[in-house]
Amino acid sequence: MKASILTIGDELLAGITLDSNATWIGRKLMDLGIKTVHKLTVPDDTTEIVEAFKLSQEKGDITICTGGLGPTNDDITLKSFCEYTGSELQFDEDYYGRLINEFERRGYKMSETNRNQALIPDKGQIIPNPKGSARGVQFEKDGKTLFILPGVPGEMKTMMEETILPYLESLDKDNYHVINLRTTGLIESALFEMVSDLVENSEMAIAFIPGFTGVDIRLTTMDETELFELVNVLYDRIGNYIYAENWDPLEKAVGLILSQVSLTIAVAESCTGGLLADRITNNPGSSNYFFGGAVTYSNESKMNILGVKKATLEKHGAVSSEVAEQMAKGVRKKFKSDIGVGITGIAGPTGGSKEKPVGLTFIGLDVNGEVKVKKAVFTNDRRYNKELAVQSALNLVRIALL
Amino acid sequence: MKASILTIGDELLAGITLDSNATWIGRKLMDLGIKTVHKLTVPDDTTEIVEAFKLSQEKGDITICTGGLGPTNDDITLKSFCEYTGSELQFDEDYYGRLINEFERRGYKMSETNRNQALIPDKGQIIPNPKGSARGVQFEKDGKTLFILPGVPGEMKTMMEETILPYLESLDKDNYHVINLRTTGLIESALFEMVSDLVENSEMAIAFIPGFTGVDIRLTTMDETELFELVNVLYDRIGNYIYAENWDPLEKAVGLILSQVSLTIAVAESCTGGLLADRITNNPGSSNYFFGGAVTYSNESKMNILGVKKATLEKHGAVSSEVAEQMAKGVRKKFKSDIGVGITGIAGPTGGSKEKPVGLTFIGLDVNGEVKVKKAVFTNDRRYNKELAVQSALNLVRIALL
Repeated sequence: MKASILTIGDELLAGITLDSNATWIGRKLMDLGIKTVHKLTVPDDTTEIVEAFKLSQEKGDITICTGGLGPTNDDITLKSFCEYTGSELQFDEDYYGRLINEFERRGYKMSETNRNQALIPDKGQIIPNPKGSARGVQFEKDGKTLFILPGVPGEMKTMMEETILPYLESLDKDNYHVINLRTTGLIESALFEMVSDLVENSEMAIAFIPGFTGVDIRLTTMDETELFELVNVLYDRIGNYIYAENWDPLEKAVGLILSQVSLTIAVAESCTGGLLADRITNNPGSSNYFFGGAVTYSNESKMNILGVKKATLEKHGAVSSEVAEQMAKGVRKKFKSDIGVGITGIAGPTGGSKEKPVGLTFIGLDVNGEVKVKKAVFTNDRRYNKELAVQSALNLVRIALL
Repeated sequence: MKASILTIGDELLAGITLDSNATWIGRKLMDLGIKTVHKLTVPDDTTEIVEAFKLSQEKGDITICTGGLGPTNDDITLKSFCEYTGSELQFDEDYYGRLINEFERRGYKMSETNRNQALIPDKGQIIPNPKGSARGVQFEKDGKTLFILPGVPGEMKTMMEETILPYLESLDKDNYHVINLRTTGLIESALFEMVSDLVENSEMAIAFIPGFTGVDIRLTTMDETELFELVNVLYDRIGNYIYAENWDPLEKAVGLILSQVSLTIAVAESCTGGLLADRITNNPGSSNYFFGGAVTYSNESKMNILGVKKATLEKHGAVSSEVAEQMAKGVRKKFKSDIGVGITGIAGPTGGSKEKPVGLTFIGLDVNGEVKVKKAVFTNDRRYNKELAVQSALNLVRIALL
């Protein structure tokens, strides 16, 4: 079973609104083993919407369409649906009465514009909306199904979860099985080469999805046994680079390991400016293992808070292996944690030199007194360097504890 | 001039990756007065990609296509481009040599797979990629232009900013003029009410775009004089809420003010876990005014590093106005800065009580010894609470210095 996603609205095209609906829907469908093969966004224009209905239904067995169901004059999805299917809008007196009651209950006077929310096409079934006034439509023809939902994320999600997903799950269909392996520490091409024979000899759909701080390997197949076999082989080959299955971020994997081994952590950051602490504390419950951090941007704060030695700063400079080491040791001591991390580098875009280019970064790690320092040269971009350094630091902690 | 956006990749359809590229591109085009009328995502499949090139070019005068330019076997955009245009891939020996050098410089051995990055079609012009190995293509035919870029956001954005946007700006076309006013501190309806008469009496397209940490007001018109007049009136009415024009983030506005008044800042964070320091240090040159920060997650670190009093913690709890005040004072003293900020709150999802619910946050501000504390109750979502608290803290600093 293949799916099309169709989202309607000028605001999506102009980049005013991030189209997170389509992402959410694609993921939910994939979880049911339904592959999305087409995703289209068109403006609030009847001709374009009708054409989009047609194209979307050609591509997918099911089409999920969101947006343009509101009460104002630029909401023309139902009108377009009528043109597409040859149906007519009818006024639902009963629903209108219920709407008025609902508005009163919530202490609002219902405006005349909202009368439009009681209009519904005479073809297709109504999809109830427990969270708002705009109802959806389900329309079947020639073995294909079109679902129309409002674009308000909370309403759309509730209607998907309460009506559409249970319906799709109940259908008799061949399911895909999907596993996503999240890796970090190797670039796409290097990772690919370690497993290229497996990829080339497998009938499975294997996608390498490079992200900025790692590569996801996604395996999709109808054959669950074959899937688990290949996953096992991949763990044998590149297990050290795999930090999670499915969608968990690295800080969650690290948090899990820290909890399992009952170790605590504190971090000292220069060039990453607090991003490492921010990532760690995105994980609920991180207060159980994260004692805190110091963002020591100035040399003085490195000495004053972390006890980095003046002589070291003068001899080797703030961006040096020696300073990263003293930062890791110092923050561990200061916060009385088991593990200390220290990051110092040149984030850019300026401040680089020939010996110490922008992107040069040292990451110190002190695990119960055992200290090591990793050196890396990242990019010319400030934000990238912060993200890469943080990912690298989290991975250093993960590997040290494996 | 109308634009199509075409994004390629199974991962976008399956909802693995949020299609933020399309949003970013739509916004940048709108800034140039170019309207996006079609946005399509198709899988890594040559037939589908070729068909999508055709449809996108039918709808738009320009088409911006991203994705599928990597070195692995599922990267087939250039192959599809060749089929679409009747061109052939050629091996660029010179570029290959440069790639090898670049890999060496960064300490990697270049893998064989990356040879593919030196393949380039014999039709169209090359768009250089200063941030990665995958180059883009610009192809003109019958008055329509197709741009192909990599899907990695940082690479795509740099190539747009350095090559494509300047090119589009140089074209002779009827331009929209757009100004985006960024506000924070008021919800959409309150902001709207302060200027509703202006909005209703203007022929200009005025959009209120509520974001998570503020509302953007976007004005679009062909009449530049009228635009500047309205902007001036808006500044008179709601100037205190406007922190920037166009897309600059709040930390940039705050950095600018700090530089102008020559004041330095240090921050102490509990519930925001380093995000405030991270935001501040995203701004290049922030080391001129940012001395550093302390992420004091535990009570002990609040006492130990910031000098928060044990009695205060015991009497009022870590999430209290009194502790926020002591954190702000303490971090200012510790880092010897002019301004100190202290944030303490309950990020959630757990840890709330009836008196102190999840989302409760106190933000202390110490400007040269003058101290105030702001109290807020945000949401039930951990990440949202972090972002809202940080935005609120930055705005507190901005307003104190106005």
